[in-house]
Amino acid sequence: MTTRLLDACLGKPVDATPVWLMRQAGRYLPEYRVLREKLSFIEMCRRPDVAAEITLQPLARFDLDAAIIFADILLPLEGMGIGFHFAAGDGPVIERTVRAAADLTGVHVGDPRTDTPYVLEALRLVARELGGRVPLIGFAGAPFTLASYVVEGDHSRQFAEVKKLMFGEPATFKRLMDLLADTVIAHLLAQIEAGAQVLQLFDSWAGTLGPRDYERFAAPHSQKVLDAVSGRGVPVIHFAGGSVGMLAQVRAAGGDVVGLDWRIDLDRAWAELGEGVAVQGNLDPAVLLGPPDEVERHAADVLRRARRRPGHIFNLGHGVLPATSPDTVARLVEFVHDWNGEG
Amino acid sequence: MTTRLLDACLGKPVDATPVWLMRQAGRYLPEYRVLREKLSFIEMCRRPDVAAEITLQPLARFDLDAAIIFADILLPLEGMGIGFHFAAGDGPVIERTVRAAADLTGVHVGDPRTDTPYVLEALRLVARELGGRVPLIGFAGAPFTLASYVVEGDHSRQFAEVKKLMFGEPATFKRLMDLLADTVIAHLLAQIEAGAQVLQLFDSWAGTLGPRDYERFAAPHSQKVLDAVSGRGVPVIHFAGGSVGMLAQVRAAGGDVVGLDWRIDLDRAWAELGEGVAVQGNLDPAVLLGPPDEVERHAADVLRRARRRPGHIFNLGHGVLPATSPDTVARLVEFVHDWNGEG
Repeated sequence: MTTRLLDACLGKPVDATPVWLMRQAGRYLPEYRVLREKLSFIEMCRRPDVAAEITLQPLARFDLDAAIIFADILLPLEGMGIGFHFAAGDGPVIERTVRAAADLTGVHVGDPRTDTPYVLEALRLVARELGGRVPLIGFAGAPFTLASYVVEGDHSRQFAEVKKLMFGEPATFKRLMDLLADTVIAHLLAQIEAGAQVLQLFDSWAGTLGPRDYERFAAPHSQKVLDAVSGRGVPVIHFAGGSVGMLAQVRAAGGDVVGLDWRIDLDRAWAELGEGVAVQGNLDPAVLLGPPDEVERHAADVLRRARRRPGHIFNLGHGVLPATSPDTVARLVEFVHDWNGEG
Repeated sequence: MTTRLLDACLGKPVDATPVWLMRQAGRYLPEYRVLREKLSFIEMCRRPDVAAEITLQPLARFDLDAAIIFADILLPLEGMGIGFHFAAGDGPVIERTVRAAADLTGVHVGDPRTDTPYVLEALRLVARELGGRVPLIGFAGAPFTLASYVVEGDHSRQFAEVKKLMFGEPATFKRLMDLLADTVIAHLLAQIEAGAQVLQLFDSWAGTLGPRDYERFAAPHSQKVLDAVSGRGVPVIHFAGGSVGMLAQVRAAGGDVVGLDWRIDLDRAWAELGEGVAVQGNLDPAVLLGPPDEVERHAADVLRRARRRPGHIFNLGHGVLPATSPDTVARLVEFVHDWNGEG
């Protein structure tokens, strides 16, 4: 068993830099597309055997240091009384958006055992299959990111509605965030029980807030989640997209590891985060669309800035893009593992 | 005449903090929507009398410290041999995207006098009408931001195509950037001649690049533009969206003023930028959708961080959102001017 990822999460020295990639199981893999032709995205999530198979697909190809369960951050919403579906282009659409207090009628804290038993079953299947070869990562969306979907109704650019609610109806916004935080806690704890050995909290839209609004409106709820799942022997990675201007606030909210996007030099970010925290990142996923020399150049830059300091997990700054070649991913994983700190 | 804006651009003390807002002429104004019902967006740009009227609309309502010409950063493309149109939701669509060397056949440096004479005429009309009451701002898109549209073909989330070209066909990418930079220079110089007293370079998508790729692929072209238009008595504002992790690189590219989005505290950003440069920003435009006390709270935070240090221009971190109430804008402008450095 490789304990690289677990060791790096805790800031311990490792024999090689651990590497996994956000969306490592996904559309860039032909074997994923074969399944996707037969099943909708949501069906793929809801069938534990299929979700387990997809989770393991990249592990069969690449020497990755972790598996991450195939699922979606929106899955817990339905059990809360917030329906959604995935539209044609796989974009999520919330069936009844929450934009006022009355919209919260009937919305309640979810229960992973009854709402998403298929995710827990998929985790158990994967954990069994992996047999401890590499750790299995479970995950959930952070309350603010989930609230963004619930209030906006779909992928948004401006986040105007969620901020309007946040500023204009802070009590309703807080009620929504409380419901989401409690639901996320229940889901993450159930994932630990089902075999997740590492957790990642995805706050993909944190960076649409300025530092002071993040601190006031989003961070306390992330902190509640991170506090509730900490101290159980399962390291937690806290990824907040677009947050390079508020890394201190992100760290203060919690997590053993802070996940970085690519919009800042890794060494500078780590210096800002300070001692006692691991970092994950931070290659621009679009680099993988370029030729091998550009991939190596960029990966080497990240690794050079990390200086093989204990506590670095190599990853992209966002998910693998669908146009990425699997060969490029194979070379990247090898390059990271072979990195000897020189060059 | 108020010289507040010009003085602030040069770091000189002012009697009150100058304020203007990106997209201050736009859909949130009912008088704009009246015109928009009769004319398409592009027709509004192409009719100098209409563009001049729209430019002046917010000045008639609010005590703003500058006018900004009503136009669009994509207007120069057509004269370069790159056709585009605005689709239903006002989103731009490029008719023939550039994704390989062959796609540059027939693409050439534009000439503002023959390509967009209507913009220059609108500038002359507005300059005459203003009679020097407040300065008139001209603008252009930065080469990387324009290239993003030209390569992606429309609004993009991932910027996968432009980066693929940048990494995979650097010579073609550079040729496109050279053509865009030379075109932008010609347009900005013509705008000065037509009466623009301040310029803003919009690099809206700079922040989709990491610091090192920005430095390699985008900044040299912005710098070429900024160098070419500097030293003509017309201050230049350099706005690079999402660039909080690479402010040093943005500053190094040039400009008398660096425009900030809201994703970083203004005082921290200014400290990173160092001495000898003015800053513009940095209120989250979504705050204006909130109640008056939230608007004041956020505006006061920006002003407090600026400490009335000479060289601060108050603005949003992005354009005014269409759902914004004009009354809120009126109160904001008054609040900024009345700010006495306390509270």
